[in-house]
Amino acid sequence: MPDTLADLRRALAEAYRIVANEGILDAFGHISVRHPGNPNRYFLSRSRAPGLVQADDILEYDLDSSPIVPPVTRPYSERVIHGEIFKARPDVNAVCHHHAPSIMPFAISGVPLVPVFHLGAAMGQSAPVWDSRDEFGDTNLLVVKPEEGASLARALGKYAVVVMRRHGATVVGGELRELVFRTLYSAKNAEHQLAAHVLGHVSPLTPGEAEMAGQLNLAPGPLARAYEYWVRRLADKEGRGKSDTSVRAAEAAARRPNPGAAVPGKASVTKTSGAKKAKAKPKPKGKKR
Amino acid sequence: MPDTLADLRRALAEAYRIVANEGILDAFGHISVRHPGNPNRYFLSRSRAPGLVQADDILEYDLDSSPIVPPVTRPYSERVIHGEIFKARPDVNAVCHHHAPSIMPFAISGVPLVPVFHLGAAMGQSAPVWDSRDEFGDTNLLVVKPEEGASLARALGKYAVVVMRRHGATVVGGELRELVFRTLYSAKNAEHQLAAHVLGHVSPLTPGEAEMAGQLNLAPGPLARAYEYWVRRLADKEGRGKSDTSVRAAEAAARRPNPGAAVPGKASVTKTSGAKKAKAKPKPKGKKR
Amino acid sequence: MPDTLADLRRALAEAYRIVANEGILDAFGHISVRHPGNPNRYFLSRSRAPGLVQADDILEYDLDSSPIVPPVTRPYSERVIHGEIFKARPDVNAVCHHHAPSIMPFAISGVPLVPVFHLGAAMGQSAPVWDSRDEFGDTNLLVVKPEEGASLARALGKYAVVVMRRHGATVVGGELRELVFRTLYSAKNAEHQLAAHVLGHVSPLTPGEAEMAGQLNLAPGPLARAYEYWVRRLADKEGRGKSDTSVRAAEAAARRPNPGAAVPGKASVTKTSGAKKAKAKPKPKGKKR
Amino acid sequence: MPDTLADLRRALAEAYRIVANEGILDAFGHISVRHPGNPNRYFLSRSRAPGLVQADDILEYDLDSSPIVPPVTRPYSERVIHGEIFKARPDVNAVCHHHAPSIMPFAISGVPLVPVFHLGAAMGQSAPVWDSRDEFGDTNLLVVKPEEGASLARALGKYAVVVMRRHGATVVGGELRELVFRTLYSAKNAEHQLAAHVLGHVSPLTPGEAEMAGQLNLAPGPLARAYEYWVRRLADKEGRGKSDTSVRAAEAAARRPNPGAAVPGKASVTKTSGAKKAKAKPKPKGKKR
Repeated sequence: MPDTLADLRRALAEAYRIVANEGILDAFGHISVRHPGNPNRYFLSRSRAPGLVQADDILEYDLDSSPIVPPVTRPYSERVIHGEIFKARPDVNAVCHHHAPSIMPFAISGVPLVPVFHLGAAMGQSAPVWDSRDEFGDTNLLVVKPEEGASLARALGKYAVVVMRRHGATVVGGELRELVFRTLYSAKNAEHQLAAHVLGHVSPLTPGEAEMAGQLNLAPGPLARAYEYWVRRLADKEGRGKSDTSVRAAEAAARRPNPGAAVPGKASVTKTSGAKKAKAKPKPKGKKR
Repeated sequence: MPDTLADLRRALAEAYRIVANEGILDAFGHISVRHPGNPNRYFLSRSRAPGLVQADDILEYDLDSSPIVPPVTRPYSERVIHGEIFKARPDVNAVCHHHAPSIMPFAISGVPLVPVFHLGAAMGQSAPVWDSRDEFGDTNLLVVKPEEGASLARALGKYAVVVMRRHGATVVGGELRELVFRTLYSAKNAEHQLAAHVLGHVSPLTPGEAEMAGQLNLAPGPLARAYEYWVRRLADKEGRGKSDTSVRAAEAAARRPNPGAAVPGKASVTKTSGAKKAKAKPKPKGKKR
Repeated sequence: MPDTLADLRRALAEAYRIVANEGILDAFGHISVRHPGNPNRYFLSRSRAPGLVQADDILEYDLDSSPIVPPVTRPYSERVIHGEIFKARPDVNAVCHHHAPSIMPFAISGVPLVPVFHLGAAMGQSAPVWDSRDEFGDTNLLVVKPEEGASLARALGKYAVVVMRRHGATVVGGELRELVFRTLYSAKNAEHQLAAHVLGHVSPLTPGEAEMAGQLNLAPGPLARAYEYWVRRLADKEGRGKSDTSVRAAEAAARRPNPGAAVPGKASVTKTSGAKKAKAKPKPKGKKR
Repeated sequence: MPDTLADLRRALAEAYRIVANEGILDAFGHISVRHPGNPNRYFLSRSRAPGLVQADDILEYDLDSSPIVPPVTRPYSERVIHGEIFKARPDVNAVCHHHAPSIMPFAISGVPLVPVFHLGAAMGQSAPVWDSRDEFGDTNLLVVKPEEGASLARALGKYAVVVMRRHGATVVGGELRELVFRTLYSAKNAEHQLAAHVLGHVSPLTPGEAEMAGQLNLAPGPLARAYEYWVRRLADKEGRGKSDTSVRAAEAAARRPNPGAAVPGKASVTKTSGAKKAKAKPKPKGKKR
């Protein structure tokens, strides 16, 4: 977690550019994080293409999506997506709204998105679908009114991803890096599901598999490994070197033996990495990674 | 809008390279703009691959597609597409003819292209299809004779995109950046429509949704945001820096709170970005973005 | 056409790297040209990945595919493809054998490749299929024996492209740049045909359209335009600048008003580019481009 | 083969980055090699995204997948995949576990992967499928317990590729470069098989063809050619020049007329590359390449 609000703005701007660099965002879409010191506020970029967002583009809003300081630039018109979800879901601290190419066929067709591989379980066991037509009839499809945002938040319910008919998807996370992981791997899951559909047999994870695999993916270890990769790919693309501050921080985090306190599999890692070449014993299912 | 004809030539050449850089144009295809001071003339590059076009490649034509100054280079053979559409459609000031990979399956199969997501509504509610065989029988499929161009313009009618069987598509716009937006997002719409077709359920926008979403996409705000993104991607690809004149101009345009006079949603933006954290009130449907 | 054999070797090596840079060749596949001064000899690289081939990798062979000078490097094992086709087809002066991703589904399935858009007509009206099993039963699928090469050449017959079951394709041309154009656009045709198949309606060009469009595509004007584009893309990828010799030569060729003597549409271009803004008159069908 | 263990670590790290650079590995997946001097040990990176792995990330394990030296970094949790396969298959000296996008539709649907073109024969005549559910019921789908690794090794049996339901695939090889070739071309085979499925006719190689083509692909000549290509593409991407040590070594290996002792086709190459332009004679089927 960032130490200061300045760090938070930098981390959020980097997340915009990572998700864009991985092909999920183009000129549109946006990411927010809740204020770590004030749950009634959140941060979101001014209206700018995600791949270009920098720390000083980040604005602060209250949960009614009104700016704290009068902005001299244009805000995103769909910011109520963020404000209304932060209101409805106290456990959510980061939100991404996007139109990823791999998600669009599901948003257009209404065919349910289901987890089809272990990393795809980051999306959860299923993803509800929201159709603006149901409550609001013909609109321009953007979510700009508070009641539209609230309706979307209700459709999201307790889930991690909500598919928006003829529009895109919105993804939520407990923190920013978890959100990025879930956003990228739920999009990859959609890509694989479509291709399996072409072969004629989509065979999803069982609820038990989805539950266990989902917890695993978002554990500190895999998250730190994946984040180092995305940070480095972005730095390479932007011509920053390996000695870039952000790259070095991500590298150090991924190198730590125990990147987090509540890491599933932490005990197991410690045990099997002990020196004496002790025979690794079978351990109870679902306890480690 | 460019201040001088020199600026216009630069903007047009940049549009060629943007549309090529985004994968819509390869060695073929072309873009024109009507002369801002003389509606009976238009500008078009000499016969050159779009990704390479520079300001001094731009030639001037009358609406019969005859050059104003005898060119010392080769012209595009299909320039009547532009001249005949400018004749038939006084509201059109920019035209793009292309063979985008995502459009080709529709051009080959004749399956109608329909708007399937909000940004895709930039294509309009539907796109007519023109088949050179209907009037001209077997040809080499190029549109080179004035009567062929006139026939295509009739097929286009009042629409924004016309699909050309076994050939490609032609897209029109009120101004150059609108044309670029419509060209790129109608191609993306085609990509998504094909993928949704694979899932078995293509569910288009209603006429009302297509109308409202279409107006919204081409409003000054979204247009400026998207254009900054495309200009920057091109500058990055061409090794020009952030301090490039064109990049800085696009950045400044996207930063302005009110990029245009008649911006839908302008009032709304002003209201909800007011400082006092006033509760945003529901507003009438379809009025803002 | 290159002036000297040294130029020819450079042009051939560049063609290898162009076709690789456009995604048609990977670690495998090869291109040959007939010796301009001795029809019983041809040039082919030593066994090397096409994207890496340089002028000094080019070896000289007789039509039995034996090297003229004992090579100190490994030759391609499938060089009889080239030798046997040069024997059977005096009109052919360049040959490309490849496993392009877009061609493979047709090579695997045996579904006939047909021209589906004007540029795809570069493949001709149809492409015969050769199956090594028919004459040779189970083999390792490579074409290494003279009788295998001769069998493939018979299957090619008078056509421009032959699809090889469970293997790839071989493409021929009257000269090197024509071969490159045909190779790239027949692969693109395959990509579009597959996508149209997904939509359920593949509607090919009529024989008349294929004939006229095919002639047009390979005329000097379009060829010079496309070649400048591919040469420049390769130079950009290889970090050579715009002032690179090869780039400047391609640029000059594409700029010339009449890049060749027998250019279809040459008269037409001259006429409509005359200065006086004379009304362009309808001209007889199929005569120009 | 590398001369020293330091060379081996460098070669293994390069293989990680090659397979990542070719799009088969992203933030996840891993590659191991058996210790050339001690068949009871193997080398594997610490838990790091493959595209970032360097020589000093490589750790040493025994076949129970316990580290030889207590690591100060995190290990991969799925290392038993490697240890258990090295136990069960003395002929295997390199293992790659991955989730390649082209393999996933087969892993999800359970549709059998079959060799569909000559280079795809590197996968062998068929690939068994392992489903963690069969023996272990609901899990998080990772292979972390010794008995899970042993079960996967049993499913692999004598084959070269095992598809893992709702997870990915594991590929084995006699040595590292063979493994890389098999990994990349079995993934490409899957891509082509899916596309041929779309056309409605998947026609696999016969067992005889698969046997002969498979042997051929992994012969020293083609292997050296392909490896030079992948090494160079990686060096280009990483900004290392042509004079890079690794690039020069791969270039020299690919240039040698006889890159290995037991090269199929070696005799044939020598014979047909003899100087005197002797007429190449037909030779017995299946003996050369």
